[in-house]
Amino acid sequence: MTDFAATRDAFHLPDGLTYLDGNSLGPMPRHAADRVAAMMRDEWAGMLISGWNRAGWYVQPRKVGDRIARLIGAGEGQVIMGDTLSIKVFQAVSAALRMRPDRRVILSDSGNFPSDLYVAQGLAETVGAELRVVAPEEVAAHITPDLAVLMLTEVDYRTGRRHDMAALTAAAHEAGALTVWDLAHSAGAVDVDLLGAGADFAVGCTYKYLNGGPGAPAFIWVHPDHAETVRPCLQGWMGHAQPFAFDQGYAPAPGIERMRVGTPPVIALAALDAALDVWEGVDMATLRARSIELSEAFIAGVEAACPELVLHSPRDPAQRGSQVGFRHPQAYAVMQALIAQGVVGDFRAPDVLRFGFAPLYNDMEDVARAVEVLAGVLRQGLWDRPEHHRRAAVT
Amino acid sequence: MTDFAATRDAFHLPDGLTYLDGNSLGPMPRHAADRVAAMMRDEWAGMLISGWNRAGWYVQPRKVGDRIARLIGAGEGQVIMGDTLSIKVFQAVSAALRMRPDRRVILSDSGNFPSDLYVAQGLAETVGAELRVVAPEEVAAHITPDLAVLMLTEVDYRTGRRHDMAALTAAAHEAGALTVWDLAHSAGAVDVDLLGAGADFAVGCTYKYLNGGPGAPAFIWVHPDHAETVRPCLQGWMGHAQPFAFDQGYAPAPGIERMRVGTPPVIALAALDAALDVWEGVDMATLRARSIELSEAFIAGVEAACPELVLHSPRDPAQRGSQVGFRHPQAYAVMQALIAQGVVGDFRAPDVLRFGFAPLYNDMEDVARAVEVLAGVLRQGLWDRPEHHRRAAVT
Repeated sequence: MTDFAATRDAFHLPDGLTYLDGNSLGPMPRHAADRVAAMMRDEWAGMLISGWNRAGWYVQPRKVGDRIARLIGAGEGQVIMGDTLSIKVFQAVSAALRMRPDRRVILSDSGNFPSDLYVAQGLAETVGAELRVVAPEEVAAHITPDLAVLMLTEVDYRTGRRHDMAALTAAAHEAGALTVWDLAHSAGAVDVDLLGAGADFAVGCTYKYLNGGPGAPAFIWVHPDHAETVRPCLQGWMGHAQPFAFDQGYAPAPGIERMRVGTPPVIALAALDAALDVWEGVDMATLRARSIELSEAFIAGVEAACPELVLHSPRDPAQRGSQVGFRHPQAYAVMQALIAQGVVGDFRAPDVLRFGFAPLYNDMEDVARAVEVLAGVLRQGLWDRPEHHRRAAVT
Repeated sequence: MTDFAATRDAFHLPDGLTYLDGNSLGPMPRHAADRVAAMMRDEWAGMLISGWNRAGWYVQPRKVGDRIARLIGAGEGQVIMGDTLSIKVFQAVSAALRMRPDRRVILSDSGNFPSDLYVAQGLAETVGAELRVVAPEEVAAHITPDLAVLMLTEVDYRTGRRHDMAALTAAAHEAGALTVWDLAHSAGAVDVDLLGAGADFAVGCTYKYLNGGPGAPAFIWVHPDHAETVRPCLQGWMGHAQPFAFDQGYAPAPGIERMRVGTPPVIALAALDAALDVWEGVDMATLRARSIELSEAFIAGVEAACPELVLHSPRDPAQRGSQVGFRHPQAYAVMQALIAQGVVGDFRAPDVLRFGFAPLYNDMEDVARAVEVLAGVLRQGLWDRPEHHRRAAVT
């Protein structure tokens, strides 16, 4: 059994704060600062250039990738770290397009994170492809035989709605298309099974439920059936078969290593590696059950105490990720008032209050306090104060 | 006047080590570890998601870029940080290609860093362009009216040969082409003058002479004449005009901000920002003079003491960056023997010993010791031992 009291204790959580925004930025694992300090002192300062071999910096993107693989239903040697999620989306979709040279259509949905759509749009304009965007519930009906790539984020960043990865992947394959799954709101949040679903590509970030720190490196996974033949469009030297031969021509490295691009972010990978220690021994089915327990209790509590809020997430927990959205016409001001009272969620335009439940450290006390404070803010109209209406650049 | 004794003292340099590999990985500034520890504790752990505004993470890529701008002859608000150099090369070349839709030729040279060539090759295959690679000394003769982009690394990673940025840029413009300059071995090493040369795009890494740490973020500069019209191919949400409006369609942010892609690497940027403190007040002309003084003394010393070595760099310091290469048939083993004696340079295939001179911390004592040890290794044949012939993955 996973000991959630122990995993909660592994994080630095400021006193008095109820943090329900781990789906935006996870908190710092207590030992991450020491790990990074040691890396800087013993490896960068102490080993200098020899750290690439002696400290294993060169192989770190693969080793860290292996630790994430277990959490997303992938195998060893199938996941590699680097860059940002937007870059990994570009890399996956461009590689998939090259595998279907006679097709030019990328299908996505309006619940996808905007950056994924921007990336696909930029790619489509560059290579002469077409990006089609439909409503999330209409995706299945739009999987047509002209489709090259189905590009979806499994869990909607606003509503928490979870796509059926296996069913949509099967339908895409039936139509001769490939799938790219963005796991930004899935990795570390739900029980992802990439190999079981037969997905083709998956990408994700590590600063949300995986707690790697602000701007932590992204990951990419390629199904082993494609890994030895896929040809990346972003061809960097770290993905070369022999990076240190300094050949002038590109030759892809074996397997997933070819999806590396430039020099890996060594300091950031040290922080992420420390964060992944907390995941050791965590059973993903237990995690999923805990996530559902927390979000179900939150929905029930809010609906009982805050009749003016409208649930913006699927009611069926099987169709949700690990977050819950509620709508309110003054959602921005309500969230500011909540934050002022020490309950941190997120506002997402135009009118969504978003609450993430990270089973590693959120517990039923967090749920109870969030419900209580939210009900109080609404009952007393605390949101309707000038200081809560300022609009800043928030994430 | 720049006080090089003070800047040297700002770095952690292991006792007894003569480090001439700052052109591969710069050493750690002493205060960088504290800065990163404070950032993790006070910002990530202490502020959580609010760090994006309260700690200024969101604007950090621009603020750090401004600090680098001064070192490369660019203006404020013209440089932005993020990703890796390979990604920034892709971004610059793809953007330049879009500005010349009726032309499809990218010209580069065989002295360019292989990753730049791989990236251009991948891009060319993806968009249907042609990459032409000629010898460095033949670049000028190959600037023809069909050229879309001239993509060069200013300072050759093996020989240290420095291109004439102003002259080649003028020739490219005369032919109607745009220029992309890779400053990997220039930024912090020589007196770059991007605005004076009239360059169009420039990119660079920050883990070499700028000492940002292993895998530190890259930078990109776009000439202000293009910055408001250039259309990036890598369209990420951080480069959107209104990232937090979560529009479905991409609209580029004003100016250089549009060259941002995904979430910035906050921890790595803290280390880099600390490293840039050491550059405060450093005069680039003084730095360049110091670099020439060091490399001239090294060449003279080596040629006097090691007749079997062949200079692999231009003899005229005006045509060199801040590194010197010498050839030896057993260069790999020679470098291993040098490292065993505490003199750290670099081997570059097939037969080059590479020594970088970082004026911020290298001094004439380093030069004298390197010459002495190198001469001893060669005179006594110390390189010809089995342990120096193992070939590992080095960078």
